[in-house]
Amino acid sequence: MADDSRVPIPTLTRLATYYKILGEAQVRGVHNLNSAQIEAECGISAAQFRKDLSHFGEMGKPGVGYEVAKLRARIATILHLDRTQRFALIGAGRLGQALAAYPGLNDYSFELTALFDTDKKKIGRRVNGIEIEDADGIPNRMRELNLKIAVLTVPGSEAQKASDAAIKGGARWILNFTPAHVRVPENCMVRDIVFTQEFAVLAHYIEE
Amino acid sequence: MADDSRVPIPTLTRLATYYKILGEAQVRGVHNLNSAQIEAECGISAAQFRKDLSHFGEMGKPGVGYEVAKLRARIATILHLDRTQRFALIGAGRLGQALAAYPGLNDYSFELTALFDTDKKKIGRRVNGIEIEDADGIPNRMRELNLKIAVLTVPGSEAQKASDAAIKGGARWILNFTPAHVRVPENCMVRDIVFTQEFAVLAHYIEE
Repeated sequence: MADDSRVPIPTLTRLATYYKILGEAQVRGVHNLNSAQIEAECGISAAQFRKDLSHFGEMGKPGVGYEVAKLRARIATILHLDRTQRFALIGAGRLGQALAAYPGLNDYSFELTALFDTDKKKIGRRVNGIEIEDADGIPNRMRELNLKIAVLTVPGSEAQKASDAAIKGGARWILNFTPAHVRVPENCMVRDIVFTQEFAVLAHYIEE
Repeated sequence: MADDSRVPIPTLTRLATYYKILGEAQVRGVHNLNSAQIEAECGISAAQFRKDLSHFGEMGKPGVGYEVAKLRARIATILHLDRTQRFALIGAGRLGQALAAYPGLNDYSFELTALFDTDKKKIGRRVNGIEIEDADGIPNRMRELNLKIAVLTVPGSEAQKASDAAIKGGARWILNFTPAHVRVPENCMVRDIVFTQEFAVLAHYIEE
């Protein structure tokens, strides 16, 4: 069995997909799924699915497939989705509000706990039940709420400032949705989600 | 020199990053950049940068680095960013509106040309100057405007329907921001942007 701590990121992304598919199967009352059914649900090949799981010592049974509940719990353990991950969202613009209201986050046990913006007109309003607070209070509030995860949906020009404030408040994991590069101390981690780059990747394949 | 048509997706994503950095350097009037400066700007290692470019026969000059304008034009050619890519956006909710207004899309020569929604209250309103049109008209309007690219920002439950309508209207490239799996004919391509999965990937690294 491979060491969980060194799972490559593309594998983690696929595990997140399987986790979602298995949750949907549970809701439908499905108890077993085979790799061909997984392929039909999510478009990842049956061979890739089997290979990914074999790294963790998980094997389907011939003719039966995989036990949905058991496999889902196993993936939750690998991805640390077996605990609630409370996070702060910095930036309550369109993207921030879209994220705050996105139902898919609950699937991954992420819980929006605080929401910040610098715009005085927005402060005090609520998005999905969470009040928008003044960004000046980020360090204190994050420390008070013991939040270690910050998600940045501010304009790129404010990304570094937002990240610095979050880290001052004790954040160690930053999910950066801005196009800016953010510098953090050694003991912190940033993951950049640059979805506009996906347009450039797509463009490469466009023939006309 | 490698064949451009088989560039791995992680390389394409990094090329998109270099392209952005080089554009910013041009705006600042910088004529040359070396790989260490690229690393400082975007966090991708100098060694990785040199390796990526060497696949395309691009070499920096010792002591001078890379010519910003020339390298940017070369990457634009590889990524097909040397032409305008007009696209339709289906779904004018928060995420759709965030994308419609996102300044970064212009950096990659993507031009929002039509915007659709099923919500009668939204139809006729404008986002970033583009009028929201009735989703019932997708096939006709996409054909009329000769749009081959559709970006889906509808709820997951409507993704297949939106994709089918776009393909009926001549779309061949789909960028799917919904959590749903979308099935398309053989001659079409879908890229899934499941940004919530990035939360799950992050969670794997969270220790407490």
